[in-house]
Amino acid sequence: MRTSIATVSLSGSLTEKLTAASRAGFDGVEIFENDLLASPLTPEEIRARCADLGLTIDLYQPMRDIEAVPEDEFARNLRRARHKFELMRRLGTDTVLVCSSVSPLALDDDALAAAQLSRLADLAQDFGVRVAYEALAWGRHVSTYDHAWSIVEAAGHPALGTCLDSFHILSRGSDPKGIEDIPGEKIFFLQLADAPLLAMDVLQWSRHYRCFPGQGGFDIAGLLRHVVRAGYDGPLSLEVFNDVFRQAEAGPTAVDARRSLLVLQESIGLTTLPQPVVPTGVAFAELVTPDAEPVAAVLGALGLARTARHRSKPVDLWERGEARVLVNTGPAARRDGTGLAAIGLESPDPAGAALRAEALLAPVLPRRRAPEDAPLDAVAAPDGTELFFCATGRPELPNWRADFEPIKDAGTTSAGEDTAGGVARIDHLALTQPWHHFDEAALFHRSVLGLHGQESVDVADPYGLFRSRAVTGPGGSVRIALAVGPAPTEDETRAQHIALATDDVVAAARRFRAAGGQLLPMPANYYDDLAARYDLTEGELAAYRELGILYDRDAHGEFRHCYTRTVGRVFFELVQRDPGHQGYGAQNAPVRLAAQHAQRPRR
Amino acid sequence: MRTSIATVSLSGSLTEKLTAASRAGFDGVEIFENDLLASPLTPEEIRARCADLGLTIDLYQPMRDIEAVPEDEFARNLRRARHKFELMRRLGTDTVLVCSSVSPLALDDDALAAAQLSRLADLAQDFGVRVAYEALAWGRHVSTYDHAWSIVEAAGHPALGTCLDSFHILSRGSDPKGIEDIPGEKIFFLQLADAPLLAMDVLQWSRHYRCFPGQGGFDIAGLLRHVVRAGYDGPLSLEVFNDVFRQAEAGPTAVDARRSLLVLQESIGLTTLPQPVVPTGVAFAELVTPDAEPVAAVLGALGLARTARHRSKPVDLWERGEARVLVNTGPAARRDGTGLAAIGLESPDPAGAALRAEALLAPVLPRRRAPEDAPLDAVAAPDGTELFFCATGRPELPNWRADFEPIKDAGTTSAGEDTAGGVARIDHLALTQPWHHFDEAALFHRSVLGLHGQESVDVADPYGLFRSRAVTGPGGSVRIALAVGPAPTEDETRAQHIALATDDVVAAARRFRAAGGQLLPMPANYYDDLAARYDLTEGELAAYRELGILYDRDAHGEFRHCYTRTVGRVFFELVQRDPGHQGYGAQNAPVRLAAQHAQRPRR
Repeated sequence: MRTSIATVSLSGSLTEKLTAASRAGFDGVEIFENDLLASPLTPEEIRARCADLGLTIDLYQPMRDIEAVPEDEFARNLRRARHKFELMRRLGTDTVLVCSSVSPLALDDDALAAAQLSRLADLAQDFGVRVAYEALAWGRHVSTYDHAWSIVEAAGHPALGTCLDSFHILSRGSDPKGIEDIPGEKIFFLQLADAPLLAMDVLQWSRHYRCFPGQGGFDIAGLLRHVVRAGYDGPLSLEVFNDVFRQAEAGPTAVDARRSLLVLQESIGLTTLPQPVVPTGVAFAELVTPDAEPVAAVLGALGLARTARHRSKPVDLWERGEARVLVNTGPAARRDGTGLAAIGLESPDPAGAALRAEALLAPVLPRRRAPEDAPLDAVAAPDGTELFFCATGRPELPNWRADFEPIKDAGTTSAGEDTAGGVARIDHLALTQPWHHFDEAALFHRSVLGLHGQESVDVADPYGLFRSRAVTGPGGSVRIALAVGPAPTEDETRAQHIALATDDVVAAARRFRAAGGQLLPMPANYYDDLAARYDLTEGELAAYRELGILYDRDAHGEFRHCYTRTVGRVFFELVQRDPGHQGYGAQNAPVRLAAQHAQRPRR
Repeated sequence: MRTSIATVSLSGSLTEKLTAASRAGFDGVEIFENDLLASPLTPEEIRARCADLGLTIDLYQPMRDIEAVPEDEFARNLRRARHKFELMRRLGTDTVLVCSSVSPLALDDDALAAAQLSRLADLAQDFGVRVAYEALAWGRHVSTYDHAWSIVEAAGHPALGTCLDSFHILSRGSDPKGIEDIPGEKIFFLQLADAPLLAMDVLQWSRHYRCFPGQGGFDIAGLLRHVVRAGYDGPLSLEVFNDVFRQAEAGPTAVDARRSLLVLQESIGLTTLPQPVVPTGVAFAELVTPDAEPVAAVLGALGLARTARHRSKPVDLWERGEARVLVNTGPAARRDGTGLAAIGLESPDPAGAALRAEALLAPVLPRRRAPEDAPLDAVAAPDGTELFFCATGRPELPNWRADFEPIKDAGTTSAGEDTAGGVARIDHLALTQPWHHFDEAALFHRSVLGLHGQESVDVADPYGLFRSRAVTGPGGSVRIALAVGPAPTEDETRAQHIALATDDVVAAARRFRAAGGQLLPMPANYYDDLAARYDLTEGELAAYRELGILYDRDAHGEFRHCYTRTVGRVFFELVQRDPGHQGYGAQNAPVRLAAQHAQRPRR
């Protein structure tokens, strides 16, 4: 189906909005009146601009407080409408949205509403315009879609139809099944918006918290299925009022928006995309750093060994067991400082994974960075992290390891040869997201990579709230924790970390410390509280206290973890996770964040 | 009464919070458990720190999910409680908050709750601790204050009392009158928080949107009156969970907090402060600028004349009618660029106004900036704007004009001598507030200056939402519009402006343009919409369109306004206001903001 987006869903001037919608591949737009009023372009220029950009103008909106009013008021409304229909002729658009009235003048009289809407449609017809009447969830007398439809049906006017909006329908708890009773040709327009499930005033909820389909809690797919069954074949249009999108750059928001419609259409069989290829493990994490020494010191103390060197680039491979970390001292590091730049994901079908990512609008990266490199499939995530699809150990496919020259006498790399507490693999990667794109990141990782999204949690930092949400592969083979910090200005909220799994965190922490590593110290009060909450043995408690190990437990098992000091924006975590435990120590995060703040130079 | 604040109400480490509370003059604190857990200080060190800072620890909180549970669970709870009572002994605090249970294990059994709370109080008594039981608004079985009190009453234990929290009581819509039926000595603690009136999930409302008394919509004074009548004489303590305060600096937040308690106590006669002295007009607005030339060009084109020069400083007085603008090219300007730095307010009693401001914790500025200056009373507003209390034309009092030497042949300064459209006075001043202190600014201007607060409005900017709220003096003699922009990072959101009143904005705009002034152009589409909405004459509409004049109207009259281009962070507005109209053209603000963005260099 054709896709469209309301200009109110994107930030910036009308010109910026149209450009972003076009670049993201939308077929059309809804022009929101305030965007037109504020634009220096004439309606004719807007029409031409849209044509140049390959966009149709699918809707002009909104007209408010039109129907079911005393005759003198309605006469004024018709006068106003005539102006707008003239404007629409200049714009070259043929459908106008009329919202159900919220005016104190409006009467609770469906027959009057139908009669006046019919007269409005008469006038509209003279201008070649169709009127799409929509029930606002907070309309004064008409607030449900079936009520709006009954008025449209009673009017029986060819230029009068209804507009359905998923937010208004689902926020009221209406059953969308009744949509199938509306003749498809009388559904003049369909607006889609999702929203988190909040118990709050519906007007505020609508104006500030809408989001793109798949990013909230509504069953948008279920609703769309009913609309399609009713025979609707107009555009799928996104109308999303959102305080964050208002501030975000229009370009990435438009891409996020269209991705959400692609996933939605796929979910009910309206379109076919390359199948998701779910990653089966983490091949490597790649750090960039201008100075390898501090990172090497931490990795070495964690028990990883430098086993190989890239044949043509300043990149070292450090590994132990299944945990592999690349340390890249190339140009990007000199620009951005020490950070997590790329993730290698083990994939059963790297080319297929890249195809799906591309179909879902992820930028595809060049397969070969240098002529001699193995040709690897890779895409960029919304936060810029590069995702490489790897097929380690499959001789028929390009192998990232082929680019690396082993280093002789590199030391022990197998966890098997070792005593307890060796690092076995990467437990999870934590990536702090740009402030405006947290919901986009979650949808990206779920839809592009086929990972499963866990619940979002709020964590108190001494200087604000963090939101965090993990996406995981089957059996915890891949775990990525996405976080967003409180203040868009604070550089420190860009912290990232690599969590390494061990079967004995006490032994691992001791060895790390013995090897010269510095653990993040935790406050004694935390351990007094642990003693109050759990029946841990004195020995356990003493070891945790000594090493700064944090403890969490739920019905599915225990979770023990400790942290290294931070190098640049990156730190490491040692994790001992019971197989059933799906958490990340959220209840300990405030203490950990405070300890990290305490390590920083005074503000 | 003694004043106290919960550490959760302030940002930062525990040490930072305690320091801020002490500096703002609080008598005590509630220690929030998570702040203690995250602190590297031992309980003994925290106790000593508080003593050094002159703070008592009035409460330790919270203990959760204690009561009305099966016996084995309760035994575990008692074990946990013993740890906490030991901790409280080390802290030197004697009251603990127990919140009504939200546990799925809790039984709907008041007798069991009373019996178990009684056993908890037995244990507490051994440690010299009192238990204050509070109904959470979302408690599983106990969610109202009278219910919690009935359980405490049934228990009849000397070490068990109740804690009242204004948020939990008022958010549920409970009638606070019943508080008077509780014996004062059984009210062990009182927590105060206000909140905006939002229809939303009460848990989310509580965790994110609480604010200080007088900044929300609750009748906190009414509740406090009942608590005092009940005989309570413990501390008034602020427990405010707020996402903005979490990010704001603790110092200013603590001052804002204590100011709110002073105003609250005054409002019900618990304390006496110097009377508010309401300003009767605007004596002057003072601009600082590194380069007087662009500002002088605009002021001159607006019809103001440079009439006097400061005797010892690089400050010029520009005036026309009652509109006076100082242009200061001193050192502050070289630091901060062109901005609005000070406001002179006509005051019937300048010394009294300053006394009140000082009593409400406003920083008092030196009366004489230089030995030869007139001794003027002045204080700093929360955003740093200097407020001078002036008594123009009263010979018995120091006069700011005495510092200025008239310039001969300065041109026409009286509106009376002039044709229509002359600037008559300052209509309003608009000050963009630092992001974290919008609510503080509104409370400051209301409580310190005795101005009246109007409703808050949201305005869409192309790159986010603005919030705006005006404070006004009687009859509109003083109008200050406080605004806060969408993004804390954007320098442009610090824009300020001076609105000048005229009785003929068309004439004023024409004269401004004829004198070489540049008006902010408005889009043609805006005027097409005006034509659709209002029955303006063709002549009016043509003039507005030509000059970029915006139009608004309500039941109380019309409002016409236009804008100059921006100099530094400052621009000017010409305003023609019908006497009854109280607005500021909020409906036109999106168009104006977009026009201002369009004038800026491309991002």
